[in-house]
Amino acid sequence: MSLPDPLCDRLRGILGTRLSQTAADRDHHAQSESFHRSPPPDAVAWPETPEEVAAILAACNDARVPVVAWGTGTSLEGHALPVRGGLSLDLSRMDEVVGIRPEDRQASVQPGVTREALNRELRATGLFFPVDPGANASLGGMAATRASGTTAVRYGTMRDNVLGLQVVLADGRIIRTGTRAAKSSAGYDLTGLFVGSEGTLGVITELTLRLHGQPEEVAAALCAFETLDQAVECVGATMQSGIPMARIEFVDAASARAFNRHSGSALREQPHLMIEFHGSPGAVQEDAARFGDIAAEFGAQDFDWATTAEDRARLWRMRHGAYHACLALRPGASGLVTDVCVPMSHLPAAVAAATADIAAEGLIGPILGHVGDGNFHSLLLVDPANADEIAAAKRVATRMAERALAVGGTITGEHGIGIGKRGLMRAQHGDGWQVMGQVKAALDPHDILNPGKLVPDRN
Amino acid sequence: MSLPDPLCDRLRGILGTRLSQTAADRDHHAQSESFHRSPPPDAVAWPETPEEVAAILAACNDARVPVVAWGTGTSLEGHALPVRGGLSLDLSRMDEVVGIRPEDRQASVQPGVTREALNRELRATGLFFPVDPGANASLGGMAATRASGTTAVRYGTMRDNVLGLQVVLADGRIIRTGTRAAKSSAGYDLTGLFVGSEGTLGVITELTLRLHGQPEEVAAALCAFETLDQAVECVGATMQSGIPMARIEFVDAASARAFNRHSGSALREQPHLMIEFHGSPGAVQEDAARFGDIAAEFGAQDFDWATTAEDRARLWRMRHGAYHACLALRPGASGLVTDVCVPMSHLPAAVAAATADIAAEGLIGPILGHVGDGNFHSLLLVDPANADEIAAAKRVATRMAERALAVGGTITGEHGIGIGKRGLMRAQHGDGWQVMGQVKAALDPHDILNPGKLVPDRN
Ligand SMILES: Cc1cc2nc3c(=O)[nH]c(=O)nc-3n(C[C@H](O)[C@H](O)[C@H](O)COP(=O)(O)OP(=O)(O)OC[C@H]3O[C@@H](n4cnc5c(N)ncnc54)[C@H](O)[C@@H]3O)c2cc1C
Ligand SMILES: Cc1cc2nc3c(=O)[nH]c(=O)nc-3n(C[C@H](O)[C@H](O)[C@H](O)COP(=O)(O)OP(=O)(O)OC[C@H]3O[C@@H](n4cnc5c(N)ncnc54)[C@H](O)[C@@H]3O)c2cc1C
Repeated sequence: MSLPDPLCDRLRGILGTRLSQTAADRDHHAQSESFHRSPPPDAVAWPETPEEVAAILAACNDARVPVVAWGTGTSLEGHALPVRGGLSLDLSRMDEVVGIRPEDRQASVQPGVTREALNRELRATGLFFPVDPGANASLGGMAATRASGTTAVRYGTMRDNVLGLQVVLADGRIIRTGTRAAKSSAGYDLTGLFVGSEGTLGVITELTLRLHGQPEEVAAALCAFETLDQAVECVGATMQSGIPMARIEFVDAASARAFNRHSGSALREQPHLMIEFHGSPGAVQEDAARFGDIAAEFGAQDFDWATTAEDRARLWRMRHGAYHACLALRPGASGLVTDVCVPMSHLPAAVAAATADIAAEGLIGPILGHVGDGNFHSLLLVDPANADEIAAAKRVATRMAERALAVGGTITGEHGIGIGKRGLMRAQHGDGWQVMGQVKAALDPHDILNPGKLVPDRN
Repeated sequence: MSLPDPLCDRLRGILGTRLSQTAADRDHHAQSESFHRSPPPDAVAWPETPEEVAAILAACNDARVPVVAWGTGTSLEGHALPVRGGLSLDLSRMDEVVGIRPEDRQASVQPGVTREALNRELRATGLFFPVDPGANASLGGMAATRASGTTAVRYGTMRDNVLGLQVVLADGRIIRTGTRAAKSSAGYDLTGLFVGSEGTLGVITELTLRLHGQPEEVAAALCAFETLDQAVECVGATMQSGIPMARIEFVDAASARAFNRHSGSALREQPHLMIEFHGSPGAVQEDAARFGDIAAEFGAQDFDWATTAEDRARLWRMRHGAYHACLALRPGASGLVTDVCVPMSHLPAAVAAATADIAAEGLIGPILGHVGDGNFHSLLLVDPANADEIAAAKRVATRMAERALAVGGTITGEHGIGIGKRGLMRAQHGDGWQVMGQVKAALDPHDILNPGKLVPDRN
């Protein structure tokens, strides 16, 4: 497919050489971190201003041509793949930190700014942006997927840390949602509606973010457990105790093995928790001691405290490298990453059932996750050329999702729907899924924004 | 007006004697805590189950008759007034605590449960529901207005503490939004869409709420300042410091005078801060000491610590009685309550400008509020029979809102839009207000749910 000529002319008028139809550029925007695949887009655009985005959307809306926003392409369910062709809208050139307001603990950024870039800019202010999906994703993409990560247990997800947005709607209208105030009751929460909408309702062209004070004191550690159950039950007890954990991550024995091979660590090949405390020196000491007491009850061993900033950086680099470390357990494999999230009291049973199911299907699938939220992943390693294996992995993933739903949980805690989870939306939401479709149809009547994703097909 | 006969028959078939057309019942549902007035509804219904709500909405939707949900009627902008007649849907009989899950820190409640009733039920669990608008409002009404209050600075608003909802849509469909998991990325945030929608998108028939652990230690205090500026600037410095305040409330000299007359207190007639700390004994002590140091820099005097639970209850009863205490400053007066919320750095200027403006118009208007969020109210005391005074109060309120908007704030931090603030929606949201109208039209095509509120009129 290729774009209709009149549209191409119109887009070239807006973008000049920042519109590309080369195979290399198109192929790059058909790649995905996971096993999902799609034909390439018909063209790629690199807008530099909200007004350009507005002009592009108006043009594509008139021509009824799909537009799929592209942040850094790290999403795991094929979110940014142009499954119905059209234009890939690459926001990487909109990468300006528009303003930092330390006195209000806020920053305004363009969508292409990555979380690492923002945190570099913030270093001197004593503030930081906490949402941390590991990957150095764009803040626009993170908002669009309602991302979270290791620190959500303390600082919340993108839902909690986006105060406002500038959004371009399908017809090219530019709106602002939210405010710079800490709270507002002025009508529907449009910010919350666009956060997590995966590019299907509008294109985010600016974000107002909530910042947090860099903690006075930080302490992090790693500890090992004899059994998976003990590790996971320790998490439940810790959360019940109300200790304000800044991070509490679970990694299973297979993940520990992967770290050892990939990061040169020398962990016992046993389940571990990775933890972090933020606060005043007194509070951190108190919290760490209380956690130590609880962990001891569950037989925790080998407490390894990361006392310097470098040690901590090494610890979390290892955790953030988990995806690639685990992939390397099986060279050539692709990952199918599950992402259920359950109420805390159901976490031990959910992890145990997942482990048993993966073993029963004969798959390799390390388990790890943001267990303080009840959120965990298994990274199912599949040979992308082996249809049977992919089918087996999908069965495991589906059963994991179904078990999560049965206890009031969700099919995705943080990765989102994309292509991969769309088949489970009705099971999670019932008629609510139709309601999402009604909202989408109201805001994007010609279905140009990331069509074929998230909502039901139009009939 | 009265309901069409066929609808009346249909409703009576659903509700029996729980449908009333008596003048007393109708008049009761045309009252408002503030100066807003409306004709009474044509009838009042007291459903007892979600299925009854669904049947009522389907009937009214078929007949194109308005339905206005009614919680406890404490909203301050005429939200629950049936400005276009129709049915007042009183949810007070749906007052069951459906379930408490202490291990997950969650409760499921019907919409008519009040926050005090819920907290009574929770007492034995060691948990509590923190959102606290002072009035003993219904949890359905609090969700519908996105309420908050004194503790939002620590625990968030209804936006942060509602995990999921059961909602009946205009056409009678019953959906469930959200999950029991701590977070989810599964599509549009419908929970967030209904929270704050003021009964215009659906009727909430059940809520899943996030609970919090009762703090191990609580300390509360009151302190006086020489000037309003010093008090408000002390708040900014406190928030900047990162001390985790559980409450930090400002009351001005006129409010202190009102308390003295109404609650028998003996405060200096000066600006005060009322504060509270939650945490472990060590943390509370540390936090209180740090606050004391900051407050001293701003000349705080007369620190009065409420050490016992009874003392604290008295302190917050006084604060929660502020509305009626201030009203009593002028017998026979009605209140026009403003509710702006601004970024912290703009708070001192916003409070100072409001004070000056109230004085310049010759009005009585004590100022107080949840200043840790940048949120404050003035209670403009007007003679409800004096059109000039009401006009003057509205001018002051409008200018306060406009100044808030000019610095990126909001026209309402927590009370919502109702009738009173609808005229300011375009100023705050621009085209975003039209988008709200599009969402409303998609979900409520015949405009039966609380019509004439929140969104633009249909054309
Ligand atoms: C190793 C690894 C670890 C990960 N760990 C985590 C984790 O812990 N937590 C987590 O939440 N995620 C995690 N992810 C997934 C991924 O990083 C997140 O989904 C991230 O938010 C995607 O951001 P992106 O910029 O790459 O978006 P993309 O992949 O480019 O796009 C994602 C979706 O958002 C849309 N979009 C992008 N930009 C915009 C915009 N400006 N306006 C509107 N729509 C837009 C796209 O159309 C697409 O639908 C991980 C991924 C990898 C590879
Ligand atoms: C003295 C006083 C102090 C106050 N202080 C605060 C404060 O600090 N913070 C604050 O936020 N508010 C405050 N308020 C305002 C008020 O208490 C809140 O707005 C409260 O949330 C209203 O709840 P309600 O049950 O009375 O709702 P109602 O007034 O009955 O209804 C409010 C709106 O919600 C809708 N609604 C009610 N129930 C449902 C339902 N089940 N489904 C869908 N829609 C529904 C109604 O249609 C209406 O639009 C105060 C009020 C008073 C009188």
